[in-house]
Amino acid sequence: MVDVRCTGRPPHEVTPVRIEIVAVGTELLLGQIADTNSAWLGDRMAANGVASQFHQAVGDNHGRITLALRTALARSDGVIMCGGLGPTQDDITREAIAEVMGVELVRDQAIMDLITKFFEARGRAMSSNNARQADVPKGAAVIPQNGGTAPGLICPVGNKVVYAVPGVPYEMAEMFDRAILPDLRARMAEAGEEGVIASRVLRTWGASESTLAESLQGRIDVLDSGGDVTLAFLASGIEGIKVRVTARARTLDDVTALLDKEEAEVRRAIDERLGDIVFGVDDESMEVAIAARLVARGLTFGVAESLTGGLIASRLVNVPGASAWFRGGVVAYHSEVKFDVLGVPTGPVVTEPAAAAMAAGAARVTGADVGLGITGVAGPDEQEGVAPGTVFVGLSLPGQPTQTRQLRVPGDRERVRQLGAISALDLLRRALDAHNS
Amino acid sequence: MVDVRCTGRPPHEVTPVRIEIVAVGTELLLGQIADTNSAWLGDRMAANGVASQFHQAVGDNHGRITLALRTALARSDGVIMCGGLGPTQDDITREAIAEVMGVELVRDQAIMDLITKFFEARGRAMSSNNARQADVPKGAAVIPQNGGTAPGLICPVGNKVVYAVPGVPYEMAEMFDRAILPDLRARMAEAGEEGVIASRVLRTWGASESTLAESLQGRIDVLDSGGDVTLAFLASGIEGIKVRVTARARTLDDVTALLDKEEAEVRRAIDERLGDIVFGVDDESMEVAIAARLVARGLTFGVAESLTGGLIASRLVNVPGASAWFRGGVVAYHSEVKFDVLGVPTGPVVTEPAAAAMAAGAARVTGADVGLGITGVAGPDEQEGVAPGTVFVGLSLPGQPTQTRQLRVPGDRERVRQLGAISALDLLRRALDAHNS
Repeated sequence: MVDVRCTGRPPHEVTPVRIEIVAVGTELLLGQIADTNSAWLGDRMAANGVASQFHQAVGDNHGRITLALRTALARSDGVIMCGGLGPTQDDITREAIAEVMGVELVRDQAIMDLITKFFEARGRAMSSNNARQADVPKGAAVIPQNGGTAPGLICPVGNKVVYAVPGVPYEMAEMFDRAILPDLRARMAEAGEEGVIASRVLRTWGASESTLAESLQGRIDVLDSGGDVTLAFLASGIEGIKVRVTARARTLDDVTALLDKEEAEVRRAIDERLGDIVFGVDDESMEVAIAARLVARGLTFGVAESLTGGLIASRLVNVPGASAWFRGGVVAYHSEVKFDVLGVPTGPVVTEPAAAAMAAGAARVTGADVGLGITGVAGPDEQEGVAPGTVFVGLSLPGQPTQTRQLRVPGDRERVRQLGAISALDLLRRALDAHNS
Repeated sequence: MVDVRCTGRPPHEVTPVRIEIVAVGTELLLGQIADTNSAWLGDRMAANGVASQFHQAVGDNHGRITLALRTALARSDGVIMCGGLGPTQDDITREAIAEVMGVELVRDQAIMDLITKFFEARGRAMSSNNARQADVPKGAAVIPQNGGTAPGLICPVGNKVVYAVPGVPYEMAEMFDRAILPDLRARMAEAGEEGVIASRVLRTWGASESTLAESLQGRIDVLDSGGDVTLAFLASGIEGIKVRVTARARTLDDVTALLDKEEAEVRRAIDERLGDIVFGVDDESMEVAIAARLVARGLTFGVAESLTGGLIASRLVNVPGASAWFRGGVVAYHSEVKFDVLGVPTGPVVTEPAAAAMAAGAARVTGADVGLGITGVAGPDEQEGVAPGTVFVGLSLPGQPTQTRQLRVPGDRERVRQLGAISALDLLRRALDAHNS
């Protein structure tokens, strides 16, 4: 489970502007999709110091949407309504906001023109339903659409505000960054919130959350004594522990300078006690870290997988430009494929020598400079007398003997495969850092 | 986006027992994790005819949890609180429920004994924090834990009910099925809800939602004229369109008979107009469908992937018992690996003949009876003058010439890879059905 602990009083807790998210859509209540929009908005707001204390989800029903909206306005300073801005009969967010505002809907001609152009450009007929997307509660401001057909809204309700954004994830995200975050920042400044808040996440692999927190106790003590920088530890499931640095300053340049300084301090403190466990910043996955090191050294890569069944290869091809360094892999699920294709000596296959042979075989078969081999027991049963969670990794780098490592990986079958894959890539990362090519 | 359309009045809308989900945890508001628990609960409840009209998420703050709980009790008939039952200082759901109930917390000795045993069995010391997990609001019933350390609760508040379950997904799911769903069913019966509601999902691949709906218009007309069975169409992102059959009857046996009958009618109607697009029921993924066919025919399987980069292989090893029929695969990301390892003739590799050669090579290299090869362009750039979204699939089955098929797959790079993988497996499914081994 995720444990979020912040040093001192997190910048986002001091803001007087508390925003509630109301996600609109019956499919959310029926569990057909997980509410990723609310998670995205929550994360963006936290990283920018905007407090959010409640989320709601409600179905496509007028009475219940207005109730949810009134509930939100009673306990929060502003609301982001996400969804229900489409053209169908079920899309009734506009009507609900107008009722709560106590105003009528007015059809906006400029938006009508945009919608008409959208359909003309596609050679399609516009339906009368689409015209509803040009309806605006009287007194609200329009956020013009950028690509989709639905504009957003900024609606004053008393001294509070209701934002409406489309439910389509990339439309919502684009509109939030372009129009809502700046509006929120302006309101926070007006409410006495000075400056800009921004965050940077350092991604680590290999230490537990408590060990990581111990290593940073010095920094925590310094930051707790006052100032505009805080640290939070975020467990991210299988992707390791993240350290989020959040800073507040007068301008964006100032806050970036603060983040740079604290990032350096955090890296130094971690490195002193735990070594090289920081593998990326913000969105940089383990695969991105691998790619950067291979490209910097002009090396190509091939992988031989067994229990992970293609997971490592499929993660790597996600990195843009992978074709410059990734040759391919062998999924040697059956033992005979290990023997016949990779040249693993006949015999037990859940062993360190087998992992080493798989690594060398991966490099040879794919014609790569670097090879990784991984074999182990995902569970729930033992294999060859070896317990579930036992994973052997082999690494073949040019000009040096093949290295091996044994890992103990917790969890069920799926977790062992996922954690085993990332652990193996982390070993590769460290080996590349140590390798002079 | 998901479009849920139901025929007639969905069974779950007529129940007088409306349950609100309140998810507790600051990490949810900060967007560190998507709220999959609420989605799971919403889906389970919908499939069993339990109405849920609102969801909330709230952080680890006493005042706000009690406010969220009171809000829920004011507008719903019952509440499921998920999370905040752990041992740390942030786990305060018990205290919040007790305050709203207007009672004290009482330490339950039977639970204390279970928790003590849990730690003894692991040779670990129990902390005083863990004792808090034995606290029960006076008047509440305990749902004993089964594996985890936190028991659940069933708490009467006036004539309403508050359920508390752990936030750990498998603990929550197990406790819901074991103890809460039966309790909800009993309440629904008491409230005049006659009978049992249950659902069955038919999973399809290859037709659009509107084509599927057209093919079932006959069934929809029959069902709309009255009765206890409804159909709903659920788009599930990349996993195809699902047809959910929901039925109500007096007993579980009766409802199962209704579901069997309607499943047969739906399959007949679909098959007449669209052919063999139903590949699984409920949780049966495309991979499970493949596995069943290979096992039934005593055939083994190997795959050669390019743009999908190991995705197909990694999906297949997820199926329990895969080692009985899955030999392995080759991820031939670089063209040379296609030539050298799979025996693809030197030349363009985004072609039908290349896919055919990859399929034959996959079977030969892995020693499998059946081989699948897939090559194509994920995008965003063209490759060898071939447009993004173009995918070629080759299938090599014993005793027949290698078959090929060209697919047009929509979406961005990641979507092309995912949809390409499932489409390729669907072609294999159909080819196996047509194959007499």
